[in-house]
Amino acid sequence: MSGIVSTLAAEQRTAERIAESAVRIDGVFPFTEIRDWFAERRLTDVARVERIALDDLVRWRTDDATGNIVHESGRFFSLEGLAAEVPGGEVPAWTQPVIHQPEIGILGILAKEFDGVLHFLMQAKNEPGNVHGVELSPTVQATRSNYTRVHRGNFVPYVEYFQQQDPKKVLADVLQSEQGAWFFQKRNRNIIVETDEEVELRDGFRWLTLGQIHRLLAGDAVINMDSRTVLSCLPFSGVGLADNFSFPGQEFRRSVIRSSSADRSGLHGVGEILSWITETRTRHEVSARRIPLREVTGWTRRPDAVVHDSGLFFKVIGIEVETEGREVTGWTQPVVEPVGTGINAFLVKRVDGVLHALVNARVQPGFLDVIELAPTVQCTPDNYTWLPPGARPRFLDDVLDARPDRIRFESLLSEEGGRFFHARNRYLVIETDADHAPDPGPDFRWLTLHQLVGLLRHSHYVNVEARSLIACLHSLTGTPATV
Amino acid sequence: MSGIVSTLAAEQRTAERIAESAVRIDGVFPFTEIRDWFAERRLTDVARVERIALDDLVRWRTDDATGNIVHESGRFFSLEGLAAEVPGGEVPAWTQPVIHQPEIGILGILAKEFDGVLHFLMQAKNEPGNVHGVELSPTVQATRSNYTRVHRGNFVPYVEYFQQQDPKKVLADVLQSEQGAWFFQKRNRNIIVETDEEVELRDGFRWLTLGQIHRLLAGDAVINMDSRTVLSCLPFSGVGLADNFSFPGQEFRRSVIRSSSADRSGLHGVGEILSWITETRTRHEVSARRIPLREVTGWTRRPDAVVHDSGLFFKVIGIEVETEGREVTGWTQPVVEPVGTGINAFLVKRVDGVLHALVNARVQPGFLDVIELAPTVQCTPDNYTWLPPGARPRFLDDVLDARPDRIRFESLLSEEGGRFFHARNRYLVIETDADHAPDPGPDFRWLTLHQLVGLLRHSHYVNVEARSLIACLHSLTGTPATV
Repeated sequence: MSGIVSTLAAEQRTAERIAESAVRIDGVFPFTEIRDWFAERRLTDVARVERIALDDLVRWRTDDATGNIVHESGRFFSLEGLAAEVPGGEVPAWTQPVIHQPEIGILGILAKEFDGVLHFLMQAKNEPGNVHGVELSPTVQATRSNYTRVHRGNFVPYVEYFQQQDPKKVLADVLQSEQGAWFFQKRNRNIIVETDEEVELRDGFRWLTLGQIHRLLAGDAVINMDSRTVLSCLPFSGVGLADNFSFPGQEFRRSVIRSSSADRSGLHGVGEILSWITETRTRHEVSARRIPLREVTGWTRRPDAVVHDSGLFFKVIGIEVETEGREVTGWTQPVVEPVGTGINAFLVKRVDGVLHALVNARVQPGFLDVIELAPTVQCTPDNYTWLPPGARPRFLDDVLDARPDRIRFESLLSEEGGRFFHARNRYLVIETDADHAPDPGPDFRWLTLHQLVGLLRHSHYVNVEARSLIACLHSLTGTPATV
Repeated sequence: MSGIVSTLAAEQRTAERIAESAVRIDGVFPFTEIRDWFAERRLTDVARVERIALDDLVRWRTDDATGNIVHESGRFFSLEGLAAEVPGGEVPAWTQPVIHQPEIGILGILAKEFDGVLHFLMQAKNEPGNVHGVELSPTVQATRSNYTRVHRGNFVPYVEYFQQQDPKKVLADVLQSEQGAWFFQKRNRNIIVETDEEVELRDGFRWLTLGQIHRLLAGDAVINMDSRTVLSCLPFSGVGLADNFSFPGQEFRRSVIRSSSADRSGLHGVGEILSWITETRTRHEVSARRIPLREVTGWTRRPDAVVHDSGLFFKVIGIEVETEGREVTGWTQPVVEPVGTGINAFLVKRVDGVLHALVNARVQPGFLDVIELAPTVQCTPDNYTWLPPGARPRFLDDVLDARPDRIRFESLLSEEGGRFFHARNRYLVIETDADHAPDPGPDFRWLTLHQLVGLLRHSHYVNVEARSLIACLHSLTGTPATV
């Protein structure tokens, strides 16, 4: 009879432990030591990455019949074509290249208490697409081919914690989508497992408090995308958090922790939000299917890249990598290189002292279930130059014209460096007035953080860009760096 | 600040109002009057349905290139082919005909309080595939083509309540899958809206309490599939329900209401269940794609039907319908006619007085997200005659050999009569001992009713056969008919 009650109590205690970890700037390792270790890893773990012609890719070939770029093993991923139809959209139908990777990978973070404070095991990892090389990744970031050793590389450290875990020690475990503009229905298993065993600390790994991770998140290109998406799935939501963490005198910070408190008001109830999502999925009739890359129109395969005839959007290029500290030490692969730097921004506002973020029910062709909740603004402004002015993304001007004192978070962060080359987006949290956009239209809603965290227990609700921003929002519960 | 608190309170009150309605056998109309009205509708609303050759279908044609059977408008639905791959399954790869209907229809029930008791507006509706003609359907049961009037039939009564609803009056609103063996990724919007307006009572409609619906559900082929799936989505789960509805001396009935009480223990926590679902989705690599019907192997198109060469599974046939009381009065259409009668059964057991149902994480090719939770046993026993004995469904013998006093529910119920012809399954709830199947293996788990109801707020979790059985389980909170 006490089973569920104690489940609720355990969930509450987990939320409190997460919040406690978020306010700790020093842990097993002092923050300064973490910072120096990271700087040293970036200096010493260096890869040489060079662009090569698509025809010079080794162990990758272009299929004669389809024009798809595939690995000779038939595994990993392939570059194929996508035909999308979005009736009523600004562009109602188009074709494009897309990454197809049906395997579900593991993005896993191992957690453990030291001196009663939760720490997370992070890896300093160099990915070829990263501008600055090493970033902090989850404990395990592995495709199924990686961890089943299809390519005979080194074994994946710590992967056993995510394959044979005790179900009672799982803090989060959910399949989440990746970039819906570049991937076809790609998902990874976002999983956080707590252990109380002795864990060997391997070279390239460190235990960090959530507060330390959050402070590093404010820096450009330190916390990688895979870390951000897993962190967003932390069950950082409980009853009464705002009472236990009151942050006197720091009104904005208090509004964030209130937003994570399930006992604080939202503008909409959960049932109302679920009904709105159902309505948007019913209203948008979307069709997206894979086609041969050869049949994509408006794109040209040149020796060095597959490019859009406008020069916009992205390119498919080849790279050659030589590195140490990875599964194998040299390889070539195709990657997607975006054109221009994107903007992913949440408008937020305080309503009765509770922070709300404006989410957009967004159609992207790579989603499995029509729409997912996206940032208020998610775009590469350059891509809109060829569209009529009416197509300019809503709320973009609120972001671009924000007064500096309304910018609550700003950082230039990388997308996944194993598939994307120099893909960076400016992540922003912009505070607006409480009376801003009270009725934002059928595709937008103001949600609290605990509502978003509740949705993140399930697949198909929050896209990867919004998940990154949720990790950024959570970081605002931490001690401001300047205090 | 009281917003969420009052949301929780409103949800709690809704659960209590549902439970109160479930124990009422008389409402606006006494039960005997409802029963007589239904019997009279069945006698007077009669359709003539005849089998016709597939080539004699009117306004439907067989596409020359694909062999698909399509409507001349390009809308409604089509009969196409499906190629499925389930590595490691008993049958690792096969092709079959499948119904493709990308439109999302509305299955909506209107609710309203009379004398403080929730009533649900049900329609006596004749569908051509029903063996006995009229069954009780939701208030609205309409494809998008229906309610946007593509086929220029009569308007759909009451549909406006589900298109422009007040979000605060929505009791449930979620996209749910339909038969994963016969449909390709078909989903309908299951929605329950409460109103406090005057509602005109049209011919063929009646307001029923949940207790009345539940008692009719015990009869063969009275409550149709669409009603059952919508009813399963009722938020029939709250804190302390077991205290308010204690049913002295009726231990089994008490175990059902305890199972609906969120404060009562389950064998597994919600996080544990979600992690298990994620694990099963990661473990099963499934591929299912549409192919031309002409390319399906092992099936033959005869003049009267598309049939499997073994004579098993199902047939695609044509029917001609003449009826009154529908959108149009005569038409022809293709339908799927199953071979044999299926069994959909939950094994249930009481653990510390709380009823648990044994669910199966089941791969079906028509699901959008790999697996959904299915009944313990979901099969047509005849279909297994050609497979090796090891392929016999687990727990089938527990169902077939159950002592009569362990059968808590049994009814022969129809599947959707607009797409399926004489498709009936025996729905069973069989109670087993508390120590039965304590460790049922990687694809089964014992769940409580409130855990299942929690999952039913979201898509992709519970299949249509299990949803029917959840409605049946809820009916066991009612006064036993013999008391």
